[in-house]
Amino acid sequence: MNIGFIGLGIMGKPMARNLLRAGHRLSVYDYRQEPVQALCEDGATAACSAADAARNSEMVITMLPNSPHVREAVLGKDGVLQGAQQGTILADMSSIAPLEARAIAAACEARGVHMLDCPVSGGEPKAIEGTLSIMCGGEAEVFEQIRDVLLCMGSSAVRVGEIGSGNVAKLSNQIVVALNIAAVSEALTLAAKTGVDPQDVFEAIRGGLAGSTVLEAKAPMMLCHQFAPGFRMDLHIKDLKNVLDTAHAADVPLPLSAQVLEMMQAVKVDGGGTLDHSALALYYEKLAHVSLKGDGEVSGP
Amino acid sequence: MNIGFIGLGIMGKPMARNLLRAGHRLSVYDYRQEPVQALCEDGATAACSAADAARNSEMVITMLPNSPHVREAVLGKDGVLQGAQQGTILADMSSIAPLEARAIAAACEARGVHMLDCPVSGGEPKAIEGTLSIMCGGEAEVFEQIRDVLLCMGSSAVRVGEIGSGNVAKLSNQIVVALNIAAVSEALTLAAKTGVDPQDVFEAIRGGLAGSTVLEAKAPMMLCHQFAPGFRMDLHIKDLKNVLDTAHAADVPLPLSAQVLEMMQAVKVDGGGTLDHSALALYYEKLAHVSLKGDGEVSGP
Repeated sequence: MNIGFIGLGIMGKPMARNLLRAGHRLSVYDYRQEPVQALCEDGATAACSAADAARNSEMVITMLPNSPHVREAVLGKDGVLQGAQQGTILADMSSIAPLEARAIAAACEARGVHMLDCPVSGGEPKAIEGTLSIMCGGEAEVFEQIRDVLLCMGSSAVRVGEIGSGNVAKLSNQIVVALNIAAVSEALTLAAKTGVDPQDVFEAIRGGLAGSTVLEAKAPMMLCHQFAPGFRMDLHIKDLKNVLDTAHAADVPLPLSAQVLEMMQAVKVDGGGTLDHSALALYYEKLAHVSLKGDGEVSGP
Repeated sequence: MNIGFIGLGIMGKPMARNLLRAGHRLSVYDYRQEPVQALCEDGATAACSAADAARNSEMVITMLPNSPHVREAVLGKDGVLQGAQQGTILADMSSIAPLEARAIAAACEARGVHMLDCPVSGGEPKAIEGTLSIMCGGEAEVFEQIRDVLLCMGSSAVRVGEIGSGNVAKLSNQIVVALNIAAVSEALTLAAKTGVDPQDVFEAIRGGLAGSTVLEAKAPMMLCHQFAPGFRMDLHIKDLKNVLDTAHAADVPLPLSAQVLEMMQAVKVDGGGTLDHSALALYYEKLAHVSLKGDGEVSGP
């Protein structure tokens, strides 16, 4: 399929590469030259704008940081709608506010472009492996037309409901991940401060009801203070802001998500915004004057 | 081995039964007659007190609701120490406060009885299957002597550290479980109130970083309001009180555990104390005026 791909960041670049590997023809755009050149070496064509990437493409994929970037890339000057033909399918795979996804989709539909919101879960390693979990909102018929393309980038692509639903699912995902990271942080901090090796506690609880993907992936990072992302704290802060905006608009009080957002914000203030989100543990270490590292040393980000 | 078993409740009864099946000789005590009789039909001998159960036993197991019950059964009138011989091993498998475990163990040691704290995770189904996760604190040498006995009741028995460490690990486990239940509750409530089927969100996120044993076990219960325990809310409240007592004594602020305790307490006030701890979802349903059940009906416990 002819695909326009806009946004070649830490996630978009390996996703685009997996589409090329699967035999799709890509016209790629990013405001930075480096990833565009890298993709062209893999067989993509360089576009000079989002509109240019959309021209002659049956499908356009956007993979951008947040709602304003998607709005600009799609509705703005030299944006997707200025290049796309009637009937083009736009899959926005960014994680944005569900209400914004609905608004942008309505503007697309008025121009004959069918938008789905298809945010992903899994982070850079799964983007590289092509094993992302993809959550989709939009018309079922449109989803069926691009499901196979999505599965070049992910191990699952599930349609959750109408437009915006993909991002609701993604925000739900981010709530669970954030609170599960906080859960592991509170548990291991209690152990460390009461003189029990948090590594041993990790081993003792991982097989039971406390078991989780977060525990397996993040506890080892906390226990050796290796906070290379993974998924950056400042992106999780962005997602939790979208969670709370959405929750406020829908009259859903989410007290723990609100509190974890402030905790992550505190780690960012201390310089940890570019660390992995599991660096939330540093918030607890600072509160309790203890380190989860084996050496017992108290340290910041 | 000759084993005295004290406390034949929802957990203790199937645990004792698994010891009998493995060929151990049990002298059992409970203040209720029914479970004692049931175990005697399986081959146990009825004891008339904790002291009596300890007499002629190489090992004594206590499986009781909380710290005061263990203190009474071990140190009180007609308690374990009044019957036990020098060199007896006491495995307290109750979930109690770590500081209490240390204090009771010290009193035992003064009488030549070696105590380990060996709380379990897994709930009634795993107690019946003999697949509990057992977390142990105490002398390594003593642990080695009873490891095989413990493995008649559990699929794993891990020594975490010195006396009290088993309960620290258990409290860490209960923190993670409580917060993971809250995480799933917040996520599914947001989905339901924004018009996305929480069942679809569950399916979309379970395979990614949001995946957890709690999500798999509890989301289906929340989605059909089936809150038969499982693990009772009022027992989790007890554990979280022990968490906070321990954390306060050790100077560890645990803001989210404290907040989830109050949420669980609110569900208990509404009559939900005997429901499964996943009924924490009812707290969020009440906050957001929405139901996670497919029919969209708003209801209480």
